Amino acid sequence: MPHHLPDMLRAHPMQPSDMETIRRCIEACFDCAMACTNCADACLAEEKVAELRMCIRTNLDCADICEATGRVVARLTKPIKALMEAQLDACMAACEACGAECTRHAAMHAHCRVCAEACRACAQACRALREAMPH
Amino acid sequence: MPHHLPDMLRAHPMQPSDMETIRRCIEACFDCAMACTNCADACLAEEKVAELRMCIRTNLDCADICEATGRVVARLTKPIKALMEAQLDACMAACEACGAECTRHAAMHAHCRVCAEACRACAQACRALREAMPH
Amino acid sequence: MPHHLPDMLRAHPMQPSDMETIRRCIEACFDCAMACTNCADACLAEEKVAELRMCIRTNLDCADICEATGRVVARLTKPIKALMEAQLDACMAACEACGAECTRHAAMHAHCRVCAEACRACAQACRALREAMPH
Amino acid sequence: MPHHLPDMLRAHPMQPSDMETIRRCIEACFDCAMACTNCADACLAEEKVAELRMCIRTNLDCADICEATGRVVARLTKPIKALMEAQLDACMAACEACGAECTRHAAMHAHCRVCAEACRACAQACRALREAMPH
Repeated sequence: MPHHLPDMLRAHPMQPSDMETIRRCIEACFDCAMACTNCADACLAEEKVAELRMCIRTNLDCADICEATGRVVARLTKPIKALMEAQLDACMAACEACGAECTRHAAMHAHCRVCAEACRACAQACRALREAMPH
Repeated sequence: MPHHLPDMLRAHPMQPSDMETIRRCIEACFDCAMACTNCADACLAEEKVAELRMCIRTNLDCADICEATGRVVARLTKPIKALMEAQLDACMAACEACGAECTRHAAMHAHCRVCAEACRACAQACRALREAMPH
Repeated sequence: MPHHLPDMLRAHPMQPSDMETIRRCIEACFDCAMACTNCADACLAEEKVAELRMCIRTNLDCADICEATGRVVARLTKPIKALMEAQLDACMAACEACGAECTRHAAMHAHCRVCAEACRACAQACRALREAMPH
Repeated sequence: MPHHLPDMLRAHPMQPSDMETIRRCIEACFDCAMACTNCADACLAEEKVAELRMCIRTNLDCADICEATGRVVARLTKPIKALMEAQLDACMAACEACGAECTRHAAMHAHCRVCAEACRACAQACRALREAMPH
């Protein structure tokens, strides 16, 4: 797959010390946004869509929140600590909720199992950045 | 201006008791997203754009976060309390940061003054919904 | 509802001659994005959600496309004609598709009827801007 | 980097014949959205930001359009041909405009050079899907 982010970050005028942690967080946020967008759609196509309402809803929330978070973290110029911390917290909450809901359907639907993994990876990458931020 | 949200909400199968507070929060989030997107662009067109870097960056963050929050709040089906509370907190943090930064340029740029007002209104509408949520 | 866009546009350093048409297009795009996000969610809550799959899918597409279009149109600094025309065309196509699908369910679901109106208003506002653009 | 999209698509109830082309298009759209979001921010941090106004503006447009397109293409359930074609056309127009503008600054700024590559790859992936669609 095309993947230009590492070269983009290397070329950025700002070079924060935790750049690796930032890169992993951006990648995980966009990966999770793609997974959640696709999982909502896969659930919609399932015969028993009525049983997947909560999964679809949480997928849609999580996709929106992951995208917004990925964009905020991708901006290295003059970041504001309180804003970024709160958005990382919201992203962890969304990924935990969505991962938990997807896990409930993992045995039945492989797309829910994979989406739960993407949520877990994203929550972890957000937490790593959250903990790397200066106190 | 066209404004179909009130009729949309009246027609929704879910009718939560705090619908008025929800409606005001959705409207304020999208209003603030429009204002911040436009303020970033107006700052970019200013002669002294170099002095407005932080304002542009914060505008972009706030626009993304307000849009994600507005979408999450606009979903009434099977909401998840922890996710919504965390996203409302992030939106308040974004609006406060952006409103404070815009206020610094309010005497010089009318678009920053108006954007600061939109941020204030949005933070207030998010707080009202946050406080109306059951404990 | 809070509505800061008119004051934002009045304060912008760029003052294109078709500002009224631009303002109406931005407002209609965000109005339609809110309506479509909410209609997808209302459909998801309906007992017969399985019959509304196509409506939900088209609502989600239309919400994403309207938001992207509203953001592009809200930027007045150094616009690129080919890009804006193509995005306005895509937004008209999305609103027409979503409006047609929602109309099919309008007799049964008031939220689909209102959403079809929002789509119609948005397609019209995009067309007005498209036609006002210099050849 | 975490990359769950291939497994997500394999698990989807819908299995269109051009799934490989679809996957490449989704990946390229999100890759380009990340690159453009980051390039706008890198330009904002450059000393000569005033000379990069058009680049920043086009980056922001392209990021928004790529994200909306990636989401639309990631939905496999009941797609609407006219809508998807128009959005793919808009994405190609955005990537061509942004790639051309970034190329003008490529000798001076490595982030613009890399972003131009991401735009080229995304335009190509959209064109491949556009041409694979049934007539």
